[in-house]
Amino acid sequence: MQIERILENGCDRDWETVAPDEVDPIRFAVIGLGWFTRGRALPALEASDRCEPTVLVSGSPEKAEQLVHETDGATRSITYDAFHDGVAVDDYDAVYIVTPNALHLEYAETAAEQGKHVLCEKPIERSSDRGRELTRVCADAGVELMIAYRMHTEPAVRRARELIDAGYVGTPMAVDGEMTQRLLDRIDPNPNQWRLDEALAGGGALFDIGIYPLNTARFLLGSDPIAVTGTTASTHDAFSEVDETVSFGLRFPDGVTGRCYASHNARQSSSITVIGTEGRVSVEPAFFQDQSRALEISRGDGRARIEFDSVDQMLEEFDYFADRVRGQNAIYPDGEHGVVDMALMEAIYEGAATDRWVTVE
Amino acid sequence: MQIERILENGCDRDWETVAPDEVDPIRFAVIGLGWFTRGRALPALEASDRCEPTVLVSGSPEKAEQLVHETDGATRSITYDAFHDGVAVDDYDAVYIVTPNALHLEYAETAAEQGKHVLCEKPIERSSDRGRELTRVCADAGVELMIAYRMHTEPAVRRARELIDAGYVGTPMAVDGEMTQRLLDRIDPNPNQWRLDEALAGGGALFDIGIYPLNTARFLLGSDPIAVTGTTASTHDAFSEVDETVSFGLRFPDGVTGRCYASHNARQSSSITVIGTEGRVSVEPAFFQDQSRALEISRGDGRARIEFDSVDQMLEEFDYFADRVRGQNAIYPDGEHGVVDMALMEAIYEGAATDRWVTVE
Repeated sequence: MQIERILENGCDRDWETVAPDEVDPIRFAVIGLGWFTRGRALPALEASDRCEPTVLVSGSPEKAEQLVHETDGATRSITYDAFHDGVAVDDYDAVYIVTPNALHLEYAETAAEQGKHVLCEKPIERSSDRGRELTRVCADAGVELMIAYRMHTEPAVRRARELIDAGYVGTPMAVDGEMTQRLLDRIDPNPNQWRLDEALAGGGALFDIGIYPLNTARFLLGSDPIAVTGTTASTHDAFSEVDETVSFGLRFPDGVTGRCYASHNARQSSSITVIGTEGRVSVEPAFFQDQSRALEISRGDGRARIEFDSVDQMLEEFDYFADRVRGQNAIYPDGEHGVVDMALMEAIYEGAATDRWVTVE
Repeated sequence: MQIERILENGCDRDWETVAPDEVDPIRFAVIGLGWFTRGRALPALEASDRCEPTVLVSGSPEKAEQLVHETDGATRSITYDAFHDGVAVDDYDAVYIVTPNALHLEYAETAAEQGKHVLCEKPIERSSDRGRELTRVCADAGVELMIAYRMHTEPAVRRARELIDAGYVGTPMAVDGEMTQRLLDRIDPNPNQWRLDEALAGGGALFDIGIYPLNTARFLLGSDPIAVTGTTASTHDAFSEVDETVSFGLRFPDGVTGRCYASHNARQSSSITVIGTEGRVSVEPAFFQDQSRALEISRGDGRARIEFDSVDQMLEEFDYFADRVRGQNAIYPDGEHGVVDMALMEAIYEGAATDRWVTVE
């Protein structure tokens, strides 16, 4: 029954609670205009009928002004300082924070003071303490806070979760995932690349891409690890401050275990697999955008490969956020959810540094 | 070039050095007549033109005698005591030891005294100390010793190794593997089931099936782990003495890492994957017999699935052993190779018990 539904409507937005024409769109101030914003976020906001990228915030006024002209729905650009000063405060309902990790808190603080909702890129901040502070600030101000885990609205991943919840794999026992890419082939490893800067990023491959299998494992199992360990390594000079590669082990309650790998030096690869007492569900490729996703499922003697239309993961994510802000349902990947990942990643680094399993409360 | 050769002749026995009609076949005394021997080993020995299952050794004379009648090439049955007494010593050239792990040493000792070569099931024994003693005994007697790692002659795994050696994945960085099956669905969990008996088996899922991804990882990388950790769990009463499930992490030299999983309680699943700086090679399904194997390879923008004819893995393994005994080339999975796995598995248990990474010398 579950599988029939997936085959009939695999990209179903089962999370929708409010029709877009019943509510006003969410007008965003987009904070940070790097390649991810320009290549991924703005096109999705342009395509959305639930969101509008009205205000573009950048340290470079020329770049921002040029982007305003190029972006449907954008009406003005402001500097970071002008954002803190509330210059365009009437022109947006929410902020999308896509700055270096260590700057998330200051923009969330200003947004919360302004009474604006917050969609914040993962990881929530550069440390769990700062992530908790970010969460508290938003809660105290009564604004919504979502961490931008796009796997939560990726149809293939949602269908995998539904199958697991419906008992397809029996009792889940194991989760395995990896995300790898050659970062240095894609970016300029200059001193301004914040992903390589420990003070701005907080961590390396683990924070940037290891968080995908980690968080998706939590999402698929509906459970959080209770102990972790890890191993980090770097080969290029550009990764002198942060890990280029990370391997980590997870212990969930009830003997369930996980194994994950992430590297900025390995050929692009991404997958996540859950094995249970009765079956197996795997999404591969899983985590990169612009890929056609497939679900490999098996149980008993049967095995099937279910292919999905490619969706714009950022569009799904923005629209989910808008639906939750305008509707009554709670956001799933909220600040506390994001802080759990931060605490786990800090424990993985501690485990790597001390050669131990580290218990996480 | 490498891929063209695989597509043309994927099941090539590249290890052959001696033609079967140039040498006498290896006459085996088969020690232990459980379901694996009856269902897997004897049919392969019957099919081989390099081996003959001349002598069947069992604690049950009736069962053994019946099997002699049913098995092509079998000429007599003897008891375990009669084997130690050398009753049929002129009727075999080698022994195939497929008893509970803790009995491997005593049969290898007698075989070595008799000047017979030894093909010993994995793991080599119930402990690394006993494995070292077994290795020493065979070396002192000047007889050949091979540990029965059938992945070393599985064509899909050999082709994966050749691709890796030829640089297809660039520099190998990560290896991931799993082997799971519902053992209690397949065997009677009575007190006579030696796999559940710590004294006879030495370990549980790790020794029985976790050794497949562990050893195949070593085989594919041509490298041995330098530190390991693990997690064990059991849910059924039958697994009160040994681990039902094991998860383990591996650190190889040069920052290469591995992650493996094995369970006697999870739905059947098996795979092994190597990711490198330039590409990815995966065998899935990998470890169970009677399956059609496929190699998934990817590099650059390209991705291919190479399917293999199903081979009799036991036949490949027996014929490799016979080729090495009759020819001049050395056995790859020898006693020392088997002892490395024992030491690694003991360290994985130690890591699980102490919540630490354990260095292996």
